Amino acid sequence: MARDDLHKLTASEAAALIRRKKLGVVEYTEALIARIEAREPVVRAWQHFAAEQARANARWVERNVTEGALRGVPIGVKDIIETKDMPTTYGALPLYGEHRPKWDASCVALARQAGAVVMGKTVTSEFAGYYTGPSVNPHDPTRSTAFSSMGSAAAVGDFHVPLAFGSQTGGSIIRPAAFCGPIGYMPSYGIFNTTGVHNLAPSLDHLGHFARAIDDVALLGQVLTGDGRFGMGAPGRAPRIGFFTGWDKRQAQPVIWETLEAARASLGKVARIVEVKLPKALFAMNDHCLTLIRYEAARTFAHEYFQEKPGGLSNTMRDLVRDGLGVPRARYLEAIEAAQAGRALLAGLFKEHDVDVFLTPSAECLPQLLEEAISRSVFNRLWTILHVPTIAFTTGTVTLKPTPTQPKTVTLPVGIQIVGRSLRDHETLQVSRWLESRLACVVEPMNW
Amino acid sequence: MARDDLHKLTASEAAALIRRKKLGVVEYTEALIARIEAREPVVRAWQHFAAEQARANARWVERNVTEGALRGVPIGVKDIIETKDMPTTYGALPLYGEHRPKWDASCVALARQAGAVVMGKTVTSEFAGYYTGPSVNPHDPTRSTAFSSMGSAAAVGDFHVPLAFGSQTGGSIIRPAAFCGPIGYMPSYGIFNTTGVHNLAPSLDHLGHFARAIDDVALLGQVLTGDGRFGMGAPGRAPRIGFFTGWDKRQAQPVIWETLEAARASLGKVARIVEVKLPKALFAMNDHCLTLIRYEAARTFAHEYFQEKPGGLSNTMRDLVRDGLGVPRARYLEAIEAAQAGRALLAGLFKEHDVDVFLTPSAECLPQLLEEAISRSVFNRLWTILHVPTIAFTTGTVTLKPTPTQPKTVTLPVGIQIVGRSLRDHETLQVSRWLESRLACVVEPMNW
Repeated sequence: MARDDLHKLTASEAAALIRRKKLGVVEYTEALIARIEAREPVVRAWQHFAAEQARANARWVERNVTEGALRGVPIGVKDIIETKDMPTTYGALPLYGEHRPKWDASCVALARQAGAVVMGKTVTSEFAGYYTGPSVNPHDPTRSTAFSSMGSAAAVGDFHVPLAFGSQTGGSIIRPAAFCGPIGYMPSYGIFNTTGVHNLAPSLDHLGHFARAIDDVALLGQVLTGDGRFGMGAPGRAPRIGFFTGWDKRQAQPVIWETLEAARASLGKVARIVEVKLPKALFAMNDHCLTLIRYEAARTFAHEYFQEKPGGLSNTMRDLVRDGLGVPRARYLEAIEAAQAGRALLAGLFKEHDVDVFLTPSAECLPQLLEEAISRSVFNRLWTILHVPTIAFTTGTVTLKPTPTQPKTVTLPVGIQIVGRSLRDHETLQVSRWLESRLACVVEPMNW
Repeated sequence: MARDDLHKLTASEAAALIRRKKLGVVEYTEALIARIEAREPVVRAWQHFAAEQARANARWVERNVTEGALRGVPIGVKDIIETKDMPTTYGALPLYGEHRPKWDASCVALARQAGAVVMGKTVTSEFAGYYTGPSVNPHDPTRSTAFSSMGSAAAVGDFHVPLAFGSQTGGSIIRPAAFCGPIGYMPSYGIFNTTGVHNLAPSLDHLGHFARAIDDVALLGQVLTGDGRFGMGAPGRAPRIGFFTGWDKRQAQPVIWETLEAARASLGKVARIVEVKLPKALFAMNDHCLTLIRYEAARTFAHEYFQEKPGGLSNTMRDLVRDGLGVPRARYLEAIEAAQAGRALLAGLFKEHDVDVFLTPSAECLPQLLEEAISRSVFNRLWTILHVPTIAFTTGTVTLKPTPTQPKTVTLPVGIQIVGRSLRDHETLQVSRWLESRLACVVEPMNW
């Protein structure tokens, strides 16, 4: 492989080369530093990146970690995740711009122990809440990354690092993955320890990650679970792929439905397709998810809301807290119980129809222009509250011709979302690898 | 009320007196400071207590909080819970003895906003794990408080404060409550926000509290939920009280079963008693709970285990982490799925038998001598993993005559545990108040 193309390696490829001494730990980190330095001025994926520190981390790994699944692999860490050697702002700069935790989050400590090189902290919206920027879409800098794991999605989608941590409470991993192009993985609720990841709504907060290959999604999962076979291998049978019928088509742009339809047509020849009517109660989970976010976030930020000066929290977050303090306890309990019923309903659908995964849209639209970017996670929040694993990957591109407001031709990624059974992440990743080999593509971002 | 007896007020009584200007905020805090100063040299309930700081907090409340359900009520805060104005050691002194968080935990911020006076930080075992001391049982200083919320249980049981926060992952609220005499309340999983409470095993970590009256349990619950009627009022019908049959009687001392039997005999005249055979699968939840603790705690403390010097974590905690890293992922998933099935099983029992609460032992023995103290939470871990609300209170005392190893006569509290339906904390507290009026007693600790 050309030395100029080292940034295109997957984590698994790089780790194998490093293990076989075909690639140096520091050499690989340097190649990614060069990529970051070339791209970051536009992409702005990093809240904290210091080349010298990344180099020092690489040298430390080279000297002190003799083996480990991630030995020599640089990773990005969403800045709501605590790190002992780098600032952790939670995206809340007026309050915590200078904050330096005394520890690494569980996921960071496990990754370091496995030889990962912590490259830096990636941009998050304030406390993983709602707003866009400063990161921009690597496929078109006038467009949004989606949020909140915007920096991690942009960093992996733009080939700065092969792996990065993110988190999802509504749609904060899958939607940025859809916009920026990398694979996004939200695991079953709770299976990756969230110690050191700032809460937003604890009953919904999922730690997950971004990669550019299912093998890499599995690799980091192996480190977090301690199971060296996690996500590896092929499905135990020919996959049975479920598609929901009865979506309200107005919920997404036509191109989103066309992309899903194309995946289905392509799979029709090689897999068993199962049609399942989407129960209304399942789509209604989106609203229950919002109720949980409102009620829980209001309490998560009680300190910042009540005790810090008004300029500490953004107005957006203050509004969320004020609104959430008004959600009646009875309504909150209703949402929890609806979620429990929804989980049983979905488990029943998987079982009744003998389906391995469902395919759904990952986002409702192509990457939005920055000034139009809003959060509409109607294909995400329902799975988040149902605690099932989901994986988004790119299956194709859409080329937009120049217009008066967009002077250049741009090529944007578009893809699908895989929804697996609760706690069946291993099997879901196996099916995802099977689907990856038939459907997925890696889109190289534009050059400037 | 005699000024010397102010420490005997419940939080609800004190708050009412303060509201009616019959009692001053600072005056009440001073009375409790005097109580602490008299008792603390023996009881050692406080990890951090500074009279001047407590006074300052009282003065601040007096001046700045004009209304609030807890106005002027001093509270204790278990030292795994973060506070902006006091050290937070997590009970891990070699690592975090000097740690000062930048924020208050959610529960502390909400309590302060409601006018609570943060009195200090109460002793916890290291990261709420397994070990006893330095707190001692206020009813006999040669005996254990049980753990891990030992300081909060001792502080409320010894009348230092009327309310204190604790947490339970195995039996860390209910068992110390049983040993030390106050009411202990572990809510339904997740209903009180745990932001700023250090994780142990996140799928099991419950924030709860200690009090000496069900009204006070409800009062603090109102502040945390924002529902001013939470836990108030009488049950909607004559309570139906379930008792399990088929316990393995060797699991507890005879006096524990006699106490439960006495409660049952007393209630037989006024409530409908329902006998339910204890399913074996329910008691087996104790082991599944341990599996979750082992797997999750190993990851929670990855930073301290892998990156800190060996003396940072105690050997007990290092052993827990090492052991937990060896738990196979498949076994962890089995335990999660068993827990899900167990929750459905218990919900079914409540429904089938039309029971409001079950009464069970709260601890397997009377307070142990300090040198004999071990953690055997076989009447707690099963409810913790099932995520249902539980409340322990004292129903009587046992007097132990002098022996060669115990020169004085001691009077120890003994009580019962109320197990409610998942998410039905409001109704469980109503039934608990009904039971409190018929069964509960408050035992004054010994004088030295």
